[in-house]
Amino acid sequence: MTVEPPEPSGQVLVASNRGPVSYTRSGADGTLTARRGGGGLVSGLSALGADAGTWVCAALSDDDRAAAEAYGGRLPAEDTGGQSVLMLDIPRETFEAAYNGVANSVLWFVHHLLYQTPLEPVFDEGFEAAWARYRAYNRAFADALAEEAEQGAAVLVQDYHLALVPGLLAKRRPDLRIGHFSHTPWAPPDLFRVLPDEVARELLLGILGADRAAFLTGRWAGAFTDCCAALLGAEVGEGTVTHQGRTTRIGVHGLGADAEFLRERASRTDVDERLAELRERVGPGRATIVRVDRTELSKNIVRGLLAYRRLLTDRPEWHGRVVHVAFAYPSRQDLAIYREYTAEVSRVAEAINADFGRDGWTPVVLHVKDDFARSLAAYRMADVALVNPIRDGMNLVAKEVPVISENGAALVLSREAGAAEELGADALLVNPYDIAGTAEALHRALTLDQPTRAAHAKRLAEAATALPPTAWFLAQLDALRGW
Amino acid sequence: MTVEPPEPSGQVLVASNRGPVSYTRSGADGTLTARRGGGGLVSGLSALGADAGTWVCAALSDDDRAAAEAYGGRLPAEDTGGQSVLMLDIPRETFEAAYNGVANSVLWFVHHLLYQTPLEPVFDEGFEAAWARYRAYNRAFADALAEEAEQGAAVLVQDYHLALVPGLLAKRRPDLRIGHFSHTPWAPPDLFRVLPDEVARELLLGILGADRAAFLTGRWAGAFTDCCAALLGAEVGEGTVTHQGRTTRIGVHGLGADAEFLRERASRTDVDERLAELRERVGPGRATIVRVDRTELSKNIVRGLLAYRRLLTDRPEWHGRVVHVAFAYPSRQDLAIYREYTAEVSRVAEAINADFGRDGWTPVVLHVKDDFARSLAAYRMADVALVNPIRDGMNLVAKEVPVISENGAALVLSREAGAAEELGADALLVNPYDIAGTAEALHRALTLDQPTRAAHAKRLAEAATALPPTAWFLAQLDALRGW
Repeated sequence: MTVEPPEPSGQVLVASNRGPVSYTRSGADGTLTARRGGGGLVSGLSALGADAGTWVCAALSDDDRAAAEAYGGRLPAEDTGGQSVLMLDIPRETFEAAYNGVANSVLWFVHHLLYQTPLEPVFDEGFEAAWARYRAYNRAFADALAEEAEQGAAVLVQDYHLALVPGLLAKRRPDLRIGHFSHTPWAPPDLFRVLPDEVARELLLGILGADRAAFLTGRWAGAFTDCCAALLGAEVGEGTVTHQGRTTRIGVHGLGADAEFLRERASRTDVDERLAELRERVGPGRATIVRVDRTELSKNIVRGLLAYRRLLTDRPEWHGRVVHVAFAYPSRQDLAIYREYTAEVSRVAEAINADFGRDGWTPVVLHVKDDFARSLAAYRMADVALVNPIRDGMNLVAKEVPVISENGAALVLSREAGAAEELGADALLVNPYDIAGTAEALHRALTLDQPTRAAHAKRLAEAATALPPTAWFLAQLDALRGW
Repeated sequence: MTVEPPEPSGQVLVASNRGPVSYTRSGADGTLTARRGGGGLVSGLSALGADAGTWVCAALSDDDRAAAEAYGGRLPAEDTGGQSVLMLDIPRETFEAAYNGVANSVLWFVHHLLYQTPLEPVFDEGFEAAWARYRAYNRAFADALAEEAEQGAAVLVQDYHLALVPGLLAKRRPDLRIGHFSHTPWAPPDLFRVLPDEVARELLLGILGADRAAFLTGRWAGAFTDCCAALLGAEVGEGTVTHQGRTTRIGVHGLGADAEFLRERASRTDVDERLAELRERVGPGRATIVRVDRTELSKNIVRGLLAYRRLLTDRPEWHGRVVHVAFAYPSRQDLAIYREYTAEVSRVAEAINADFGRDGWTPVVLHVKDDFARSLAAYRMADVALVNPIRDGMNLVAKEVPVISENGAALVLSREAGAAEELGADALLVNPYDIAGTAEALHRALTLDQPTRAAHAKRLAEAATALPPTAWFLAQLDALRGW
């Protein structure tokens, strides 16, 4: 299918929790300094041209809120690189309850199957108050979008933070073309039913308010439509869900890696320096198994370490010949369970080093301080990349490593990652719960003959970059507009 | 359909982990004392007549093993009430690993969705050793059944402990009619895939070795066939699963309450005495909300208490007018998580009594010592029965209370219990995770007008006894034989 460029006159609005700019205040006068981020939405929206679109986002911090207030929400062009950005000054308590109390705790946990169900979740007064604020936060977005949108504009609403926005907006502005994109997995009905009935219903109806609801893989799209059928009694057709006389199209867009950006960034001096440091740390002639993750419960870092331990136990020939380079960057340390998980990662890594290490060989090199240049250096040096989440919307590490790996890294990949749908044919797929199976896959990855490894690596890099961020964004927009 | 009686000549074998008799040794000479149990299999098999069938079971304890050894496995008729019982003297380590290491930890947890997935399960060397023993334990049953069965006999294999038996037995004795019955829920594919691939495959193929695989509800049967399709690529037809040229029929038999037994037992003096004690403890004129459960993670006792607390918070008019009679009998106290859960139950109950109780009114009466007569007394006195498991194969408490309740107890029932499929129309169904929703259902149950409550209670008792244990057993047998 030939994708035609979007009509320059058509207004496009993007709505997401996190915007393309964040602020920090400093000094006695509270000078606001803007910092621009990257990602698929940034490059996609900028590809439309400076005047085509507006980005509606939330103020995430007190400093963001100060900026939103100072600028009446409309951020200055010099801060945004010319992009029109409307930053919503949502009250702190509302934002915190919506973001932490609902989205990142409950919805994230449900979609990633993370709950210890006998005790969690407990839907009590605390949750009810948070849910009321999640609604208010979604209403704030819907209000701003309704006001901002020209007749017939396209609105691309992002992720589980804003699941109610399509429904709220469609009621007020039936003239708009509304899309919703889910960046997470979706829970099967038996787990989605954990949510209070009215909450589950509102979330599904919220997304079904969109003209088109899209997902990272067919698997998550299928889980969503299963939930619509099981909980709402909606009619699921070929790529559609129909409920209460309204039909929502269902789409899939597998976000790919940004090869151009990665290659450029990974070739800079700071990455070269980190690479030299890492090589020295690992030692000459040793193979590396690399992982880079936030220390997120779903990323399965502990079982990754246990699988590496199992490799060293079952295959002593690897002693002194391999190093597991594990970067586990802190995440959500305000939550006790994340702190415990982070501590467990360190504990297991230290135990492996204590039990197997010897003079001149440290089996696990664990870094917990975020350093993007060092992550890219690790990607470059990887012989094997270990990406074993228990559940993951896509997992971009699995797509980024193949792009800049210098050794044609073999990919040990969880079948529960969305990326498995596109990369599975050239990866060593594992059941992320299975320690022995993962250890065996690591061994096979380390011993792949060079031609096979090179052939896999080439195809992995192709598949990983099949839909780079800008194309991913434009494909959503085109599909929404029916082009 | 008219169910004809089974041919008296047809041999029937029942295989289950727990048999109809258990032993205790006492005295210096180790005298063995037999104790007979009850249940659907006991009454069903005895209905066939003393000579028709043999029960093959495992020795569960050292005393059982001593008995199995002393009698060469064939228990004396005076111990079994005439029933032919073959008790397998499986080595203790094999039994413990199969029973605790696989069945009651891993399989139970998977089917009830109990795991905290970021950290559990970990399939390591310990599990592999346990799995080897689970296989050995299943082989011991298959061997005994293959030896014991006459040409063309019917074999009814029970539950998740013996999932491999049908497959093993069918290979050796293709002449047999083999049925398997699952007494638990079944996990959806996304959770069943947690198991190591080969383990998941063996379990499904094991059950598909049966000519007929039956479940307590259509929901669990559907989850099983979903797993067969998703993991094996099996072909799912109307009531069948076909894989590798072999077709297994899928059936549903919703085990009902044994009204005759319950009514007789509940009318005895010891129950009358317990009832008088409970009435005094509760106090005159107060409504009772009754729950009776093992302290099993899936039973959701903590959220039940939290819902009761919420009722007292939201509806102060109930202060002094209601008592929550909660029996939570110890279960699996060898496992840390069960001990913690049991402690949490006590903690929450005490907190409610501390926060709301006053002279002459104890809001929660919690008993943790198992006492069947007292349970029946509580059933008799219940105004409301609270049955709110997060997931349950059937839940017989929900069916037993309506049979002997004196006040036409209203039933607050989790929609995740198998019983909801049959009783849902006359129960107040709740989402077991939803504290506010459960509290509201308790309030509605307490305030149901008498005619409505009586009408519900009548229909609940009818539905609960629609398929009493003997009929349940014979229906399986008839369906297996194709009568």
